[in-house]
Amino acid sequence: MKKGCKYGSHRVLEPQGVLTQAAYKIDNNMEIYSNEILVDVQSLNIDSASFTQIEEEAGGNIEKIKAKIMEIVGERGKQQNPVTGSGGMFIGTVAKIGEDLKDRDLKVGDKIASLVSLSLTPLKIEEILDVKPEIDRVDIKGQAILFESGIYAKLPDDMPENLALAALDVAGAPAQTAKLVKPGDSVLVLGAAGKSGMLCCYEAKKRVGPTGNVIALVRKQEQADNLVKWGFCHKAILASAQEPMAVLNKTLEANKGKEVDISISCVNIPNTEMSCILPVRDNGVVYFFSMATSFTKAALGAEGVGKDVTMIVGNGYTKDHAEITLQELRESETLRKIFEERYI
Amino acid sequence: MKKGCKYGSHRVLEPQGVLTQAAYKIDNNMEIYSNEILVDVQSLNIDSASFTQIEEEAGGNIEKIKAKIMEIVGERGKQQNPVTGSGGMFIGTVAKIGEDLKDRDLKVGDKIASLVSLSLTPLKIEEILDVKPEIDRVDIKGQAILFESGIYAKLPDDMPENLALAALDVAGAPAQTAKLVKPGDSVLVLGAAGKSGMLCCYEAKKRVGPTGNVIALVRKQEQADNLVKWGFCHKAILASAQEPMAVLNKTLEANKGKEVDISISCVNIPNTEMSCILPVRDNGVVYFFSMATSFTKAALGAEGVGKDVTMIVGNGYTKDHAEITLQELRESETLRKIFEERYI
Ligand SMILES: NC(=O)c1ccc[n+]([C@@H]2O[C@H](COP(=O)([O-])OP(=O)(O)OC[C@H]3O[C@@H](n4cnc5c(N)ncnc54)[C@H](OP(=O)(O)O)[C@@H]3O)[C@@H](O)[C@H]2O)c1
Ligand SMILES: NC(=O)c1ccc[n+]([C@@H]2O[C@H](COP(=O)([O-])OP(=O)(O)OC[C@H]3O[C@@H](n4cnc5c(N)ncnc54)[C@H](OP(=O)(O)O)[C@@H]3O)[C@@H](O)[C@H]2O)c1
Repeated sequence: MKKGCKYGSHRVLEPQGVLTQAAYKIDNNMEIYSNEILVDVQSLNIDSASFTQIEEEAGGNIEKIKAKIMEIVGERGKQQNPVTGSGGMFIGTVAKIGEDLKDRDLKVGDKIASLVSLSLTPLKIEEILDVKPEIDRVDIKGQAILFESGIYAKLPDDMPENLALAALDVAGAPAQTAKLVKPGDSVLVLGAAGKSGMLCCYEAKKRVGPTGNVIALVRKQEQADNLVKWGFCHKAILASAQEPMAVLNKTLEANKGKEVDISISCVNIPNTEMSCILPVRDNGVVYFFSMATSFTKAALGAEGVGKDVTMIVGNGYTKDHAEITLQELRESETLRKIFEERYI
Repeated sequence: MKKGCKYGSHRVLEPQGVLTQAAYKIDNNMEIYSNEILVDVQSLNIDSASFTQIEEEAGGNIEKIKAKIMEIVGERGKQQNPVTGSGGMFIGTVAKIGEDLKDRDLKVGDKIASLVSLSLTPLKIEEILDVKPEIDRVDIKGQAILFESGIYAKLPDDMPENLALAALDVAGAPAQTAKLVKPGDSVLVLGAAGKSGMLCCYEAKKRVGPTGNVIALVRKQEQADNLVKWGFCHKAILASAQEPMAVLNKTLEANKGKEVDISISCVNIPNTEMSCILPVRDNGVVYFFSMATSFTKAALGAEGVGKDVTMIVGNGYTKDHAEITLQELRESETLRKIFEERYI
C-alpha cells in the first residue's frame, strides 16, 4: 500500500495543487492508501442548502433528484453541489483500515458517521435505494474513503443511529454555541425552529443561565409557541431573516430595547447577513453557521452600518463537537422526542 | 427636510426590505434627508478585487474602464461591482450637513474620506476625469451621500490626502491585527507585499515583540528581500497562496516546524482559503481580510481537515481603525516612504 497525503491531496485530479474540497474532480477509486479508511456507505445526509437546491431544480421529482445526485458523483467523484458548493455527511460500516491507521480505536465492522463534508470525500454510488426529502436523506449502496485527517464519530449504543446522524450533521453549531455563550448573555438565534437552530437554542439557554435572554427568530406562530413551551428559549419573535429592519426592531423589543450580545445564524437561505449583524451590540459576536452566508455581504455590510462586531465563519468542526451535540439529546427528553419524530 | 432611516434603508429601490448594500438599485437623488451628509466627491478608490475584475473585463483599456464604471453607477446608483460585489471608498469635501447631524464635529468644506463601502453609498458621477490603474484610483466630478450610520474620517493635516486615502482604504486590516496579535505569537501574512499586507506585517511585528515570529508570504524574491530589509517581518517565504500544501510546508520551515498562531489573508485572488487554514494550529485564528474569500470554502475546508480554528470575516470597520492605521504611517518613516512612492 502506498501512503497518501494526510489531507487527501493525492486524490485530487483537477485542478492540481488544491485540496479535495476545492477540487472540481477527485479520484474515487476505492483501492485505499495506507493512511485511508474504506467505508461501506448506507446513507447520505445531504446538506440542507444543497438538498433544497437539488430538490428545486428537480421540481420535487424523486427520480430526477436521484439522477441529479448520480450525475454529480459520477462527474466529480464526490457529492458536492455545484451551485451551493456544499456536501453533507454519511453513515456506514468500516470495511478496511489502512495499515498506518491500525492503532486507532476503530475496527472493521464499526458503524461510523463521517464528520467531514461529502464535498471533499471520495464517494462511489452503485445504486440509490431511497430518497427521503423531508429529512434530506439518501439511502445508497456505495463506498467512501476517509483520509488520515478526516474526522468521524463511532455511533453511540444508546440511541438509534439515524437519530445520532441527524444531530451530528449540524454538530458544529451547538458545540460552538457552547463555547461562545456566557452566563447573562442575550442571544438571538435566526432559523431557530430548524435542526441546528433548536440545538443552538437549547445549548444557549443552558449557558446563559437565569439572567440571560435567548431570543428565537422563526417565521410561524406555531414554531414560536412550541419553542417557548419546550423551554428552548426565553422569547420567540416572528420575522423573515431577509428583512433586517424588522428583525432589528423585534429583537430590540424582546431584549428591553437593547442590542444582543451574540447572534447565531441557522437559516438555510441567502441574504440574511444584515439581519444577523444589525441586532448585535458593538464588540458583540455574529456566528454564521448558515452555508448560505456571503462573505462580502457580511464584511461590507458590517462596515456599511459602522458595526464593530466579530463575525465568525461557522467551522463545521470544533473539538468534541460530536460529544457535545449527542449529550444534548441525552439530557433533554423533549429535544430527543422532537428529533425522533422529525428526523427518523 | 424629511428624516431617513439611520442605516439608509429609505434609499433602497429594489428589492424592497433589504439595506443599501444588498440592494440591486438605490436612489442616488442628491437632495439630502435631515440625517444625511452630502459630499462633493473628488476621487474613488476602487476596491482592489473589483478594480482587477473591471480592468480584466476591459482588457486594460482606460476608456472601457471608464465606460464600465459609468454603466455600473448609472444602473445601480452606487459603485458596486456586479461580479465581486465589492466597492471601495471616496474622498471629497462636505457640501451640506442635514439638520439632525449639525452637532457633529464636522463642517461644510471639511475634507473627508468615506470609511463605508461604495457598494452601499448613493453616488452620482457627472464626469470621470482620470483613471490611475496602478493605484485603483478614479478621479471624478460627482457627489455622494453618507447616512447617519456611515463612518468617515476627517483627513489629517500632517500628510498628503492621497496618502491618507490609500491607507484608510484598508484600515480594517491593520486595526484588527492590532487587536488579535499578542506578544510571542507567530503570525503568517498572505499577500504581504500588498497594501493591506504591509500594514498588517508592520503592526504584527510591533505586537509580537522580541519572542514572536512574523512570516510574510509573497510571490517574488525581491518582495521577500525588501520586507525583511525594511523590518516588516522576521521571515519571508515564497509561494502561491493558491497552493496550500506548499504554503503549509514553507510556513512550518519558517516557524521551527510548528504551525502558526494566526494567519491573516491580504491577497486579492480567490481559492486561497486552505492556504490560510492549514498552517494554523488548533485553537488558532484565521483572519480573512481578502474579499475574494468564499464562505463555504472556508467553513467546509476547515472541517474537512479537522482544524479547530476560529475563522473571522474581515469587518471593514473596527473601532479607531482610521487612527490606528494613520498612526503606522506617522511612526514608520520607511512605511510612509513606500506608501508615498507607490500610492500617490
Ligand atoms: N457551517 C457548517 O459547517 C454547516 C454544517 C451543516 C449545515 N450547515 C448549514 O446550516 C444551515 C441550517 O441547517 P439546518 O439543518 O438546521 O436547516 P433546517 O433544519 O432546514 O433549518 C433552517 C431553518 O431556517 C428557517 N428559515 C428559512 N427561511 C427563513 C426566513 N426567511 N426567515 C426566518 N427563518 C427562515 C427555516 O424555517 P421554516 O421552518 O419556516 O422553513 C428553518 O427552520 C444550512 O444553511 C446549512 O447549510 C452548516
Ligand atoms: N474586508 C474588508 O473590509 C476589505 C476592505 C478593503 C480591501 N479588502 C480586500 O483586501 C484584499 C487586499 O487588498 P490590498 O489593497 O492590500 O490589495 P493589493 O495591494 O493588491 O495586494 C494584494 C497582494 O496579494 C498578492 N497576491 C496575489 N496573488 C497571489 C498569490 N497567488 N499568492 C500570493 N500572493 C498573491 C499580490 O502579490 P503581487 O504583488 O505579486 O501581485 C499583492 O501583493 C483585497 O481582496 C480587497 O478586496 C477588504
